[in-house]
Amino acid sequence: MSHSTLETLSWHGDRFGVLKMIDQTLLPTEINVIECKDVESVWEAIKMLRVRGAPAIGIAAAYGVCLGLQTLAADVPAFRQRLGEVTDYLASSRPTAVNLFWALDRMKAKAESLFSTNSVQEMGVTEIGETLFAEAKAIHEEDRHVCRSIGRFGQELVRNGSTWLTHCNAGGLATADYGTALAIFFAATESGKKIHVYADETRPLLQGARLTAWELMQRGIEVTLICDSMAALVMRQGKIDGVVVGADRIAANGDTANKIGTYGVAVSAKAHGIPFYVAAPVSTFDLSLSDGSAIPIEVRSADEICDGFGKRTAPEGVKVYNPAFDVTPAALIAGIITERGIISPVNRQNVEKMLRE
Amino acid sequence: MSHSTLETLSWHGDRFGVLKMIDQTLLPTEINVIECKDVESVWEAIKMLRVRGAPAIGIAAAYGVCLGLQTLAADVPAFRQRLGEVTDYLASSRPTAVNLFWALDRMKAKAESLFSTNSVQEMGVTEIGETLFAEAKAIHEEDRHVCRSIGRFGQELVRNGSTWLTHCNAGGLATADYGTALAIFFAATESGKKIHVYADETRPLLQGARLTAWELMQRGIEVTLICDSMAALVMRQGKIDGVVVGADRIAANGDTANKIGTYGVAVSAKAHGIPFYVAAPVSTFDLSLSDGSAIPIEVRSADEICDGFGKRTAPEGVKVYNPAFDVTPAALIAGIITERGIISPVNRQNVEKMLRE
Repeated sequence: MSHSTLETLSWHGDRFGVLKMIDQTLLPTEINVIECKDVESVWEAIKMLRVRGAPAIGIAAAYGVCLGLQTLAADVPAFRQRLGEVTDYLASSRPTAVNLFWALDRMKAKAESLFSTNSVQEMGVTEIGETLFAEAKAIHEEDRHVCRSIGRFGQELVRNGSTWLTHCNAGGLATADYGTALAIFFAATESGKKIHVYADETRPLLQGARLTAWELMQRGIEVTLICDSMAALVMRQGKIDGVVVGADRIAANGDTANKIGTYGVAVSAKAHGIPFYVAAPVSTFDLSLSDGSAIPIEVRSADEICDGFGKRTAPEGVKVYNPAFDVTPAALIAGIITERGIISPVNRQNVEKMLRE
Repeated sequence: MSHSTLETLSWHGDRFGVLKMIDQTLLPTEINVIECKDVESVWEAIKMLRVRGAPAIGIAAAYGVCLGLQTLAADVPAFRQRLGEVTDYLASSRPTAVNLFWALDRMKAKAESLFSTNSVQEMGVTEIGETLFAEAKAIHEEDRHVCRSIGRFGQELVRNGSTWLTHCNAGGLATADYGTALAIFFAATESGKKIHVYADETRPLLQGARLTAWELMQRGIEVTLICDSMAALVMRQGKIDGVVVGADRIAANGDTANKIGTYGVAVSAKAHGIPFYVAAPVSTFDLSLSDGSAIPIEVRSADEICDGFGKRTAPEGVKVYNPAFDVTPAALIAGIITERGIISPVNRQNVEKMLRE
């Protein structure tokens, strides 16, 4: 991805502007930028995975709040009510990635901090709208720094000449522009290390084949595409030195929800003595959940499995189970790479310590 | 599959007849029967997976030999040379399933037993051709009995109300008509047990989604289709009581080559304390191989992963690794269910004992 010409998400104009996003469902065969001019189109883009990846969903949601507030409310109470409606609506788009709720909570908290001051009546809805727009841009900008910091910490784990495996896409397309898991490969490469990455294609929606392979090729990193079912074999063949994946929500004990299939990769990595890492910003932690059993898992449509490639590939009427995520227990994770450093070993105490800093 | 109207393979006519096969690449959306009138079309059907599954490949190859010998040789030496050419040619279609070589060897051995008798010159090529045709029909017919016997032994392992997982298709479509792994589900159901089967879709060619789900639905067995990457999750959820898969080649120590992804399923089953079984006729054993490391693994075209279903799903030019099989070590296999009984525990001594009988 050439970042000078193509961004995962970009805001154009002042707070009455538009949000542009690459439609990731069409990559890599078609590069199409969609324009969201209202909150409904942001909701639809998140729901349909036109924008996906936990951090990118958070950024999109923050801008979505701004779009939802472009219809100017007459007064502060009306504005406040509209804000509640808009955030509740966006929160209903996808249930698992906590960065969505984190971004919405942050926007609401910023507004509440204004509502609770004495000056709010004098301030008026325009100023509050401007402040929320600035907050959305801050969330977007902070993500760039967070991802680069994850890359710096993570690349210390990467030996020159080593081979890694990743699942799904935790790259530039899943964030503002640099990724979480892929940031580690980008940073390692930028620091002069030569690496080779095996990318699981990641059924059913093939984010690994469509997005990760594409991003790595764009950056000149050697990548080999495999089916998810081949990961255990390449591990047994001794080809894999380490695994790193992103995360959609991490519980207080380090249990990690990520794209379906991640758990199986972690089980295989453990069986082959290969370190398995998670790369995620601290905004991915949900300390309200004691462990991973409480993380809500989105179950998606059967069509994604039976009808995904433009051709029916399963019998009509077949019963399908299509969970979009699974939870990898902390015990299988060698380390969680955050923008503040690496949590290792992964346990409740070390998570708390890193997040308290 | 209604066996009265639709067979995996069927021979029509005398030894100058034709071989008809369901084109399995089009299932389940299209049921198309292809007619093979020469050995080249059988080779192509095996290569392109129109007929697949180790036992079915063996049957197709045996009939393929008959088709290749329909062009009558002038005399016995010419017939013998033609037989060598035809069997060498068919052997080049796919490298992993040993049943292919087993069937070709059996046809050659039958011919050699005639060539070595004194009466062969008197016998003439017609009689030798008739004898080989009878041998091909015997291989076909024996498979029906073998599969039913596997089903009878295997169904003893199946509790009423239990839930099983299978990978790829080792069903009626992989054999004459009853399957190996699926024979166990069919036999359990016929004996009055109610079961539920999770079918891995089996990327890249989706034999689980297209064939296994279809066969189970046809027989009224409850089936839930999942992506390969979901197998570890459903195991962790406690949904799976046992796993049974087919095999393409089994080494003398019990190491088993089967469809890519089988090894990962076995690793996950082990990690969750779930018994993992292999179902295969004794013709699947290759005692010339001490262990699984010597089993040749077919690597297939990148297009199967990148372009498999009428839509490009990976970047142009991406490097792909597409092994069609993997090897599951004997240590991960609770038992190998054959037509002679169940080998358990799986080790060199017990394999030898069962095959010597």
